[in-house]
This record gives sequence, structure tokens and C-alpha cells, in this order.
Amino acid sequence: MPRSKAQTAALLASPDDVEAQFYEALQQADLDKLMAVWSDDDEIACVHPGGPRLVGAAEIRASFEAIFANGAIPLQPQRVRRLLSLGCAVHHVVERVTLADDKGERSAWVLATNVYLKTAQGWRLVAHHASPAGDLAEPASGEAPSTLH
Amino acid sequence: MPRSKAQTAALLASPDDVEAQFYEALQQADLDKLMAVWSDDDEIACVHPGGPRLVGAAEIRASFEAIFANGAIPLQPQRVRRLLSLGCAVHHVVERVTLADDKGERSAWVLATNVYLKTAQGWRLVAHHASPAGDLAEPASGEAPSTLH
Repeated sequence: MPRSKAQTAALLASPDDVEAQFYEALQQADLDKLMAVWSDDDEIACVHPGGPRLVGAAEIRASFEAIFANGAIPLQPQRVRRLLSLGCAVHHVVERVTLADDKGERSAWVLATNVYLKTAQGWRLVAHHASPAGDLAEPASGEAPSTLH
Repeated sequence: MPRSKAQTAALLASPDDVEAQFYEALQQADLDKLMAVWSDDDEIACVHPGGPRLVGAAEIRASFEAIFANGAIPLQPQRVRRLLSLGCAVHHVVERVTLADDKGERSAWVLATNVYLKTAQGWRLVAHHASPAGDLAEPASGEAPSTLH
């Protein structure tokens, strides 16, 4: 039986709880579970790797529905850096995505910034900005940046 | 005479003030002005388009120093979407970068997510995540996302 939004909400007591549910939902292609982690704010926003800016629950839901039509995302969140203040948490996550093709499995890395706010309903996601980090095995902090800016 | 950090801080009364100073500093290649907008938190983070995750003031300063060695950045912030809560603001900015080459001037677009927190010293930037939005003249909300996730 699918969980109601209220039942799911009870589990989201910290930014880490919200983040865990977000990545579980991606791994399970569970659209309702995924949407339950977002705030009700009209200005929630999402940028998929290489994609446009999506604002609001309707656009975000439609984008994940299209993605999940191709199946779950074999993704592992790694090396999370956390900045926590009163009522706001900013997490920077290295997402390891496993890609399979004729030559076998290989990994791609994505850098994601996730912003959580404490709302009347508990902690919720308000922004997810993800971008490709290239094929680096270890995209270490301290590498030279690109020059665009 | 360069402004002191305290003098600069007095100007940063809102997230919009901080954002204005951040983009002015990029346009002017003014490293001290740029670094003055950041929070003192050790976990401040920055992702340049296509670049790695940089954490902490030293890494962020070094990256902008390298970028500014090539001059100022001809960049215009556009179409800002804002989510504001008590003590935290999340801005999503379309950055228009003017590139000049043999064929004349053309524009490139970058999507940036900027996160601001209200600190004891006023509003400060804690995260800047920027990624290429392609060569779209109008990267409108609602386009199909990429499929990586």
C-alpha cells in the first residue's frame, strides 16, 4: 500500500533523513516517495545534469516521471559535505551513477547541491542542482576549475 | 583604497544586496570584493561550470584568483527566481556570459544556484553552484531534461 504524504512526512526528522529518502526514491523510481520530500513552496527548483531550470512541483514531477519511464537510477550518494544553520541545511553530494553498455559497467560522477529548509511539516527539500563532474574516478576537491567562471 | 571587510559588510543588508555585490565583483575581477560576500563558515562551497566541488574559503579564493588572471567576466545575471525563508534565501539565476571570438560576440548561458544565510554579520553567500545551460538563446523553464537523472 502506498504511504500517504503524512505518513512519509513523519520519517523526515532531519536533513539526512530527507536526503536518504530522496536517493532511495531515485534508486526505486518511486515518484510519490520522491515528491514527498519536497517543500510545498511554489519556488522549489531542480536542475538535472545538463538540463534546464525547473521551478515548481508540477515541472519537477513531470521531469522525474519522464526519467523514471526509463527505469530506476543506479546512483550512490557519496562524500557528502554539510553546512547546517538554524532551519537551513546545504548538502553537497558526489553522486556515482553506474552506466552499463556493450563494454560493461562504468561510473559517471555528478555533483549535486541539495538545500533543505525546516518547515511546519519538518525538513523538506527546496532545491536540487545537479551537474556532470566528468568521468573522473575521484573528483577531488582542489582541482583546477574551468575558465568560463 | 580597498574597502575593509567591515565596510563592505555594512552594505549587505539583504540576499539581493549580496547577490548584486557578487556579480559586480565578477564583472570587475575584484577578488577582495568577491570574497567579502561569503560566509565565514568552513563548509562554504562553490562549483564552477564543468569544474570540481570547491569547499572552504581558501579553495574558492584560489579558483577565482586563477579565473581573474584572465580578466573580468562579462556576465549578466538574469531571470532570478527567489525562495526566501527565515534566515535563508535560495536564488536561481540565469547567467548570460558574453564570449568574443573571430566570428564576433555570442552569448553562453549558465544556470546558477546561490544560497544565502543570515549570519551575525548580515546576509552571506554559503553556496554557489553553476553549470552550463548550453547555447540556448532562451533556456525556458519546462524543457525536457537530460536522462542521466
